[in-house]
Amino acid sequence: MNIDLRSDTVTKPTPAMLDAMWSAKVGDDVFGEDPTVAELENKLAGLFGMEAGLFCPSGTMTNQIAVKLHTGPQKEVICHKYSHIYLYEAGGIMSNAFASVKLLDGEFGKVTVEDVADAINGDDIHAPETSLVALENTMNKGGGSVYSLEEVRPISELCRESKLKLHLDGARIFNALVKTGEPAKAWGAMFDTISVCISKGLGCPVGSVLLGDNETIKRAKRVRKAFGGGMRQAGFLAAAGIYALDHHVDRLKEDHQRAEALASVLKHHPNVSKILPVSTNIVIAQLVGVTPKEMLDQLERKGIKAVAFGKDLIRFVTHLDFTDEHLDAFSQRIM
Amino acid sequence: MNIDLRSDTVTKPTPAMLDAMWSAKVGDDVFGEDPTVAELENKLAGLFGMEAGLFCPSGTMTNQIAVKLHTGPQKEVICHKYSHIYLYEAGGIMSNAFASVKLLDGEFGKVTVEDVADAINGDDIHAPETSLVALENTMNKGGGSVYSLEEVRPISELCRESKLKLHLDGARIFNALVKTGEPAKAWGAMFDTISVCISKGLGCPVGSVLLGDNETIKRAKRVRKAFGGGMRQAGFLAAAGIYALDHHVDRLKEDHQRAEALASVLKHHPNVSKILPVSTNIVIAQLVGVTPKEMLDQLERKGIKAVAFGKDLIRFVTHLDFTDEHLDAFSQRIM
Amino acid sequence: MNIDLRSDTVTKPTPAMLDAMWSAKVGDDVFGEDPTVAELENKLAGLFGMEAGLFCPSGTMTNQIAVKLHTGPQKEVICHKYSHIYLYEAGGIMSNAFASVKLLDGEFGKVTVEDVADAINGDDIHAPETSLVALENTMNKGGGSVYSLEEVRPISELCRESKLKLHLDGARIFNALVKTGEPAKAWGAMFDTISVCISKGLGCPVGSVLLGDNETIKRAKRVRKAFGGGMRQAGFLAAAGIYALDHHVDRLKEDHQRAEALASVLKHHPNVSKILPVSTNIVIAQLVGVTPKEMLDQLERKGIKAVAFGKDLIRFVTHLDFTDEHLDAFSQRIM
Amino acid sequence: MNIDLRSDTVTKPTPAMLDAMWSAKVGDDVFGEDPTVAELENKLAGLFGMEAGLFCPSGTMTNQIAVKLHTGPQKEVICHKYSHIYLYEAGGIMSNAFASVKLLDGEFGKVTVEDVADAINGDDIHAPETSLVALENTMNKGGGSVYSLEEVRPISELCRESKLKLHLDGARIFNALVKTGEPAKAWGAMFDTISVCISKGLGCPVGSVLLGDNETIKRAKRVRKAFGGGMRQAGFLAAAGIYALDHHVDRLKEDHQRAEALASVLKHHPNVSKILPVSTNIVIAQLVGVTPKEMLDQLERKGIKAVAFGKDLIRFVTHLDFTDEHLDAFSQRIM
Repeated sequence: MNIDLRSDTVTKPTPAMLDAMWSAKVGDDVFGEDPTVAELENKLAGLFGMEAGLFCPSGTMTNQIAVKLHTGPQKEVICHKYSHIYLYEAGGIMSNAFASVKLLDGEFGKVTVEDVADAINGDDIHAPETSLVALENTMNKGGGSVYSLEEVRPISELCRESKLKLHLDGARIFNALVKTGEPAKAWGAMFDTISVCISKGLGCPVGSVLLGDNETIKRAKRVRKAFGGGMRQAGFLAAAGIYALDHHVDRLKEDHQRAEALASVLKHHPNVSKILPVSTNIVIAQLVGVTPKEMLDQLERKGIKAVAFGKDLIRFVTHLDFTDEHLDAFSQRIM
Repeated sequence: MNIDLRSDTVTKPTPAMLDAMWSAKVGDDVFGEDPTVAELENKLAGLFGMEAGLFCPSGTMTNQIAVKLHTGPQKEVICHKYSHIYLYEAGGIMSNAFASVKLLDGEFGKVTVEDVADAINGDDIHAPETSLVALENTMNKGGGSVYSLEEVRPISELCRESKLKLHLDGARIFNALVKTGEPAKAWGAMFDTISVCISKGLGCPVGSVLLGDNETIKRAKRVRKAFGGGMRQAGFLAAAGIYALDHHVDRLKEDHQRAEALASVLKHHPNVSKILPVSTNIVIAQLVGVTPKEMLDQLERKGIKAVAFGKDLIRFVTHLDFTDEHLDAFSQRIM
Repeated sequence: MNIDLRSDTVTKPTPAMLDAMWSAKVGDDVFGEDPTVAELENKLAGLFGMEAGLFCPSGTMTNQIAVKLHTGPQKEVICHKYSHIYLYEAGGIMSNAFASVKLLDGEFGKVTVEDVADAINGDDIHAPETSLVALENTMNKGGGSVYSLEEVRPISELCRESKLKLHLDGARIFNALVKTGEPAKAWGAMFDTISVCISKGLGCPVGSVLLGDNETIKRAKRVRKAFGGGMRQAGFLAAAGIYALDHHVDRLKEDHQRAEALASVLKHHPNVSKILPVSTNIVIAQLVGVTPKEMLDQLERKGIKAVAFGKDLIRFVTHLDFTDEHLDAFSQRIM
Repeated sequence: MNIDLRSDTVTKPTPAMLDAMWSAKVGDDVFGEDPTVAELENKLAGLFGMEAGLFCPSGTMTNQIAVKLHTGPQKEVICHKYSHIYLYEAGGIMSNAFASVKLLDGEFGKVTVEDVADAINGDDIHAPETSLVALENTMNKGGGSVYSLEEVRPISELCRESKLKLHLDGARIFNALVKTGEPAKAWGAMFDTISVCISKGLGCPVGSVLLGDNETIKRAKRVRKAFGGGMRQAGFLAAAGIYALDHHVDRLKEDHQRAEALASVLKHHPNVSKILPVSTNIVIAQLVGVTPKEMLDQLERKGIKAVAFGKDLIRFVTHLDFTDEHLDAFSQRIM
């Protein structure tokens, strides 16, 4: 039994999801005529109380579209130095949107309203003009850490006062909502755009949806066109998302429980010096006595896959295809 | 019976293609582990005698990746003023690759080696540095016109001598090859990159493949990442492409025959002053006495869809879902 | 006696201009404290009835700042295919502003309001969004041709109705005004920005001024900063401009007369098949029986310098340092 | 007596420098014909043992040209988070070169070879490709701190091994060389490009020179052209640089001594809690009990100008126009 904990993107559709996909009604979405794509976009927008959605091939694309819409040449994005948009999107902030970054520190990849306030550039032509604040929830590189509404609300208020846009990289927003029990609409109310991924915890094969108001999403289509993100009969993919929203959200709790269980096993490993606090489905282990590569090779030989996550860290992510059976096997092999 | 001739992108998968999709083996292609995506990439690369392929969500993306790979800031692309990459990709040459364009005239959207030779900038810092020539075959805006090997070979030779890259927008390259009977490998040998679309004449729901040598395709992955074109279990989409290469190439002849038949009916319409020469599956009609919008409305009322294609032109495209039955209905309604 | 007709940029300051330069009061203009720079900016803005000016090292920079202010990624500039901003600014429209170009034909490098109206893109995400129209007066590559107020006014009105910005590359605007006798303020009223060069016909060593409203010029400073166009004690250069506005404008008539005289000599040259109509200080000769390079070499041997200006064209430009004495010498050597 | 310590850019040419400027031989440098510009470029290149130089209107432009030459879209620059190129060039790294930044910490704005080695991205398409390391010497925001040859040599070696370019922002390199006594050629040998400013400590009105090998400087001209940095009879400005290299380099010692004297006075000010170590001509004071704005207003009322330099810091810079007389006045007014 192969245990693949590299990412929650490695899942394959369940038979029921596959059924939903192949019975989807489709059309040419570049002409705006795929009913299933429209249904997914509307369903997600409705969930978050936002006006509209745009289906894209990946979360990198929904994030990059948002960055390109909200910022631009000689403008600046405030984000944590661990942000996915800065670290893992191939330099897209700069090559797609030509914007500068003000990188914040902050425990577990999270920023405070004070951090953000300090990071806004004044009216000085030497510095780029601050135009966007981008948060990520849950925070991947921060160990799947979760923001609360109370933490984000003052940041949202500051952005509105300061005429800054606020974007949420919600690749794993459902993990956060399931954890806190907070309503999606309360989150939708705080952001100009939210990027929601269906191919991570929700278990779909492909796709992400950008949420925003009608005007923003209209402009987003133009950006998606230039990136080449317009797909034709994409309803086959969107159908998986509709199915997942109905069947795969609540079950994220199981992923979180298994992540905790996994962490409690892992911490006894002789080469693990510390486990970062586990909030959701991500477990980050600090290593001692071995390099990440050595540890990953060791795990690989036991049929376990994880990824390096910095100098002395490795990451495990639980997901739909990591069951109690896999957890047992993991425990036995680790011991 | 609805007759949709707006584009060959409006087709829906046949039951057999759906079966192929449904039974595809998939994996996380961002980790390079989707066997069906790999199979499609290799199959197409093999067909054209090129080293490698990269599956992307659209032909716009494969074209824009090529443009970004082969050119850049203060460099220039030579292409026909009717090129898809210039006219219909949302300004991507400039916003994605920061490159200038030298736009050529030429009948039916085609350029000659003399045109290209004249368009190469000399060694003068006032002008951008010519770095790429981009052709399109068949040529959409030129009425589906077809280049012959003899026409392109000297352009390819000129590019190699002049150290210019040569890209082919082969969104409808199979229409061209079926028309001329020329071997795909002879085309692969002339270009640095070829973009091949599977969602047009081949009838697949989504996707395009960029072909090139190993080094180029490796670099292409980085560009695709920044555009957000990396998809996870994309094998479901790629499976359709594999099926189509086996079953939907030869049948393009039928689309061409129906396009001719359609043209011979259409030319008798009182508001059609001229039909551009029909080479493949595209029919462009010049209007008289009505605007394109009026003509399209008139056709719409008869259950026929087409698109405006300039000041006094409209375009019809035949495809997999336009059968003899549709052709008969078209003829009856037009008369 | 060397006769240098390559450009009106080759002039050297007169003794009186040099006196004005070295007695200039200067300050650190990056701190906004150079009184002479401010005086030049205000003087020129006042002349054209515009609110503010910004002194820059070159006309390419003032043009590129305007393009960057008025357009951007996935937007489009409408201009003549002979425009300096497209042909001679090193691909800056694309590499600095990321904008696409819609290139117009039109005799002598001039465009009509009908040309412009036709070139505006509709509301379709496939095409970049038209955002700027750029004119050039006089039109260098069109042979120094001149627009009249009557020709430009409807273009200006169209731009305002269509919410497009209108920029004038006025590198040689004083040549045009001296030719037509039209008031500068009437021109200022029609444009969002005007770029005025002091190092061409006005005979200054360095510089150009961008004119616009206060808000635009404020934003322009930020763009100039990123290009590195902010200079410190630039008043030495600006002083030349102030002097030239007082002493070198009316005398442009002499340059125009000498251009006509030069043309009437040149047309008898056996290798000159045609002279483009001479409107101001530019003379473009079409060659026969020789290449531009051969002709330029031939002239060089006679102590005359000109430049190639296309396949079979060469250009001569008259200026402050081309006197009647030089004209006589030119005539004798050409015969 | 006004005491302006805001920057070493506020100086005005001495009478002897003005004489040199006035008598300069000039030509059209866009045609490469200004002998004085060429002399300055060659003189500086010779000093640093580099092949060629390029005169530009500002140090921001020479830096930005270097960044644009050495990096690009989806590539990354490693630099200190206090770097001028990142903080004070209006977002140019991103808007001009489309490159990402990896920002290093490090005392007094300096980085170590270990910092740099850790910051190089591996071969992973998620991250931009590291292509450039940029140092600054002296380090403005670090308080005029100085790198030694021994500190930089291993960084230079690492860059060559790793095929990374190495750029030096040498806006105040002569302050560093005068301080350490190290030979300019030893510095030239370590870098691919060096930007040298003549309008700071050297006391010239305008300009900066980019140094590199012939091929690099040839490419730099193309970038300068697109920025609009090509100037015509720029020899008037370059002449000041030639004069300054002969007369204003050794005297930088006086600026350094006066900076130390100024610091020893300033540290007794009740609102100054700390003075950063003074290495060259920059003095940074940490404030207590007042904001920078309050302190600057207080100083302004005493006829002393300085600038804010962060949350609780202000900066003073000594220069050619800050004499012993000014120092005495400063001491009296501060006490």
